[in-house]
Amino acid sequence: MGGDFAPANEVRGAADALAERPGRFSVVLVGQQDRVDEELRKLEAERHTFPRKHLSIVHAPEVISMEDGPTAALRTKKQSSITVGLELQKNGKAQAFVSAGNTGAVLSASTLILGRVEGVGRPTIGALVPTVKSPCFLVDAGANVDCKPRHLFEFGVMGTIYMSALANVSSPRVGLLNVGEEESKGNETVQESYRLLKESRLNFVGNVEGRDVLKGEVDVIVCDGFAGNILLKFGESIPAFFKSKFTAFAARGIRNKFIALIARNGLRGVMKELDYQEHGGVPLLGVNGVTIIGHGRSTPKAIKNMIFRAEEMVRKDVNGQIKKALEQYHG
Amino acid sequence: MGGDFAPANEVRGAADALAERPGRFSVVLVGQQDRVDEELRKLEAERHTFPRKHLSIVHAPEVISMEDGPTAALRTKKQSSITVGLELQKNGKAQAFVSAGNTGAVLSASTLILGRVEGVGRPTIGALVPTVKSPCFLVDAGANVDCKPRHLFEFGVMGTIYMSALANVSSPRVGLLNVGEEESKGNETVQESYRLLKESRLNFVGNVEGRDVLKGEVDVIVCDGFAGNILLKFGESIPAFFKSKFTAFAARGIRNKFIALIARNGLRGVMKELDYQEHGGVPLLGVNGVTIIGHGRSTPKAIKNMIFRAEEMVRKDVNGQIKKALEQYHG
Repeated sequence: MGGDFAPANEVRGAADALAERPGRFSVVLVGQQDRVDEELRKLEAERHTFPRKHLSIVHAPEVISMEDGPTAALRTKKQSSITVGLELQKNGKAQAFVSAGNTGAVLSASTLILGRVEGVGRPTIGALVPTVKSPCFLVDAGANVDCKPRHLFEFGVMGTIYMSALANVSSPRVGLLNVGEEESKGNETVQESYRLLKESRLNFVGNVEGRDVLKGEVDVIVCDGFAGNILLKFGESIPAFFKSKFTAFAARGIRNKFIALIARNGLRGVMKELDYQEHGGVPLLGVNGVTIIGHGRSTPKAIKNMIFRAEEMVRKDVNGQIKKALEQYHG
Repeated sequence: MGGDFAPANEVRGAADALAERPGRFSVVLVGQQDRVDEELRKLEAERHTFPRKHLSIVHAPEVISMEDGPTAALRTKKQSSITVGLELQKNGKAQAFVSAGNTGAVLSASTLILGRVEGVGRPTIGALVPTVKSPCFLVDAGANVDCKPRHLFEFGVMGTIYMSALANVSSPRVGLLNVGEEESKGNETVQESYRLLKESRLNFVGNVEGRDVLKGEVDVIVCDGFAGNILLKFGESIPAFFKSKFTAFAARGIRNKFIALIARNGLRGVMKELDYQEHGGVPLLGVNGVTIIGHGRSTPKAIKNMIFRAEEMVRKDVNGQIKKALEQYHG
């Protein structure tokens, strides 16, 4: 209910997911019953063909807005779609939770309601970043702004599991985001993290600088949520920057206008890769369950992809693998 | 002597600077005499017209390479161009130092040989970042990976002085790089820095997120050197990313190839703004003197611009202004 276009995009995305992969999963829509019903009626009027029997509704009267603090789901709005949805998972009535609502609220409610996977100190959010080769997984993407070396190490483990299970990368290459290539670079936390990663059984390839992120030479980039958040949001803003510069270019004469007109299509394809929506949400890793968090302005397509990803995480038992890996890599 | 194309680009850049603005300054070339002489002979053979009388050479036999540690200039190679050049400034025989050599070595040698401006805890490097409006000044750009709130505050002061003195921005707007807009965002260091900046007489406008950097709504962005370095290097790598994606686009059919061919010129202009060389080096602020540090692969044009900037910093007494401002803002 908390997404920018909720519940319209959520309902449509769920219906699209069920239509595209019928029989693979069922979807429980958690939210204000009347508003969800209204969206379903719209789909029926359009003759949207999705298996209605695999869709159910659980009423949740309250809405956590984007302005609410991260503890709202647990303290003041216990009947929100976030709380009710996560409780379903905790009580075994669902196996995954997908939301385009308040990120902080989903994050803290997931951690507190679902608990952590054994061995995990800090659940984390990872995000796929486009590169000149295959996308790489940046972890932490903003969940933990203050991290100890042990946490950064765990991010490397969780990122490795995620990329091997969901992107079919065998032995994912792990890099540590730093200000230089040498082991001695960065602050004490980063240096100690380097040591932990190097001594582990992970496929650690060393430090990765800002200029290396888009090169695609690693599959997992480990960093704290401060650097990760800033890097990701900066990356997301690049298309708008180019659009603005290109518009200014086109305004300088008829020849430029012609060039810009022709170039637009080519650029659009390239920019699309930097578009958040295409990837459809980021996984919360390390909680005892599955949570996928989407952008507030998630499109139906993004919601659909988030549902597919959630189903895959359940099917591939990512949490079981994380637990086992943490035992193994520590030992 | 330590730049990737030294001393060719350095000598040519100095000659170009003298030719373009004769009588404004003189240049002392510090390096291996025979190699510098050789480059000067090349310019003479080309009939490069620059005022030779404003150019002198001081011999420095040793070279600090890019692989040398940051203390090499002071410990093992005391006859390097970095050490000798900075000593000239310390002894009043020069007023500024420009180098495309080993950044860490120039940074630490400048701090130790020149000393710090009164009131400055940590000298810092700032860099101009392109935005959709005017460039903004990101400080720290990589000199200090671990910072206390007091240091971040000082970066805000030094950035303000720099932008008002060298970019003619009156009352520069200062933003703090953070993971959200609210005062409560970020780790403890960032939160305390927010308080210091807010309580000061600086024109502090609040937090700036990664997505805001390119918007150009602030003139100075304050951050520690870890985030700053990663952000800058990431930004520098964007043109290569687009070039690679665009080449792949062009390879998909003759129609795409045609579009790409026409679009190339438009793109080139936009990408140029992201090019480091155009800005020509970054200032080291807070040392008792003037040091401009360039990229290892600085072109003659970049060297020329670095010399112009150094002259301007001396003429406008940036250090005197920093000293006065720190007294004023603290008081």
